[in-house]
Amino acid sequence: MADIRLHVDAPLSPGAGVAVDAGQAHYLKNVMRRNIGDGILLFNGVDGEWRAEIFDLAKRGGLFLVQDQTRSQTDDATGPWLLFAPVKRQMTNLIVEKAVELGAALIWPVMTQQTNSERVRLDRLQTIAIEAAEQCGRLSVPEILAPEKLEKILNGWRPERRLLVMDETGGGRPISEVLGAPRPSMNDAILIGPEGGFAEVELDALTKFPFVSRAGLGGRTLRAETAAIAALSCWQAALGDWRQDAGRPTL
Amino acid sequence: MADIRLHVDAPLSPGAGVAVDAGQAHYLKNVMRRNIGDGILLFNGVDGEWRAEIFDLAKRGGLFLVQDQTRSQTDDATGPWLLFAPVKRQMTNLIVEKAVELGAALIWPVMTQQTNSERVRLDRLQTIAIEAAEQCGRLSVPEILAPEKLEKILNGWRPERRLLVMDETGGGRPISEVLGAPRPSMNDAILIGPEGGFAEVELDALTKFPFVSRAGLGGRTLRAETAAIAALSCWQAALGDWRQDAGRPTL
Repeated sequence: MADIRLHVDAPLSPGAGVAVDAGQAHYLKNVMRRNIGDGILLFNGVDGEWRAEIFDLAKRGGLFLVQDQTRSQTDDATGPWLLFAPVKRQMTNLIVEKAVELGAALIWPVMTQQTNSERVRLDRLQTIAIEAAEQCGRLSVPEILAPEKLEKILNGWRPERRLLVMDETGGGRPISEVLGAPRPSMNDAILIGPEGGFAEVELDALTKFPFVSRAGLGGRTLRAETAAIAALSCWQAALGDWRQDAGRPTL
Repeated sequence: MADIRLHVDAPLSPGAGVAVDAGQAHYLKNVMRRNIGDGILLFNGVDGEWRAEIFDLAKRGGLFLVQDQTRSQTDDATGPWLLFAPVKRQMTNLIVEKAVELGAALIWPVMTQQTNSERVRLDRLQTIAIEAAEQCGRLSVPEILAPEKLEKILNGWRPERRLLVMDETGGGRPISEVLGAPRPSMNDAILIGPEGGFAEVELDALTKFPFVSRAGLGGRTLRAETAAIAALSCWQAALGDWRQDAGRPTL
């Protein structure tokens, strides 16, 4: 059986006990068919990854006993921020899941003029992010900020962080050129507009900020989730941790 | 209202009539709220894209009257082939939709040893591909081949076409290096393994073929659909039609 990885809030150190609630105990016992004595991997975003043993697994909850460290904590959140205009719920969920897999350091829903603002459920997105981190092997779960208006975000932006705007109107340079050019700092953010595109006044405003670079993803009309995954992938391939040889130790 | 694009099988030329069936007529009338006299864009993969007028729209079907050409047929299927081991239905559907958006020239489900072979419904995948082509502005719908065993595909492979295998085991070079190296020809295919990874014997076999290049997508464990979208995106950015300035004419 493959190792189950679980994100926990408790501190992790040799011999520490980590309690799990009834829901997690049920999942381990009845869905994943784990029993007392089985091994499991735990991480909490601070202490690295640890092997633990299932010490108790009952209806009311369970207990893990932490054994030894399997990976020390490294900064595996060196990817860009992802800012995106929420779309329909299923695809918003997909964007969050994929952003975690693709190493985004932070996730921020953005309200633009043409954003189809179905209510964003932050607690649900947080759960999706945790599950994605557990599955993909990350040692940290990226923070998801509360939705904010584009205008307000731009006005409070720290100019050291470059904002790569995926521009569907053809106003940007090809993404390979933008990512291949010298960049002012190591901090990048990617902004994906809504399905209807940015309003003209928004694009005009974006263009005026010195920290904004507009990039294009070709001539086909990409859905928002496609553009988000594509932009993060190109970034990781050109500038991020995909440049190193693959394999767990280089996370 | 935004232009509706429809893929049709009929030839397209000035003054031609194009019949649509009851289902499409219902969709246009009751879902998209279109009426007689409204405009629509048609393409058939051969004759480019044409503006047409809705001439009739009834319960039993409808009729379009072709007016003039809006785009001439260009070869917009210059992207790589995508070979992938089918996953759960919903994500298999997603892979096909995104492969079309990302310009894949051909889509081929591959049966590997660890493929979770839920039955692949080719007719359903074809419908998804048509809808994605309509939505993203492609002038052609990529062919979807019937599922085939990996071994059989490899043994019949034409060696002029490079096969880029996304290798989760860390055995490949970073994808940016693989895509940045001189390549033997303009024809590439991308192969995405199953969720459980390739069997060791499969990876060994793959390594022996001179047309195979193994590429890595970093140290996080990517789900199959993420790897497929990521690999196609990196390919288009580095070698494909995303290198040109964005905008419809360059499709």
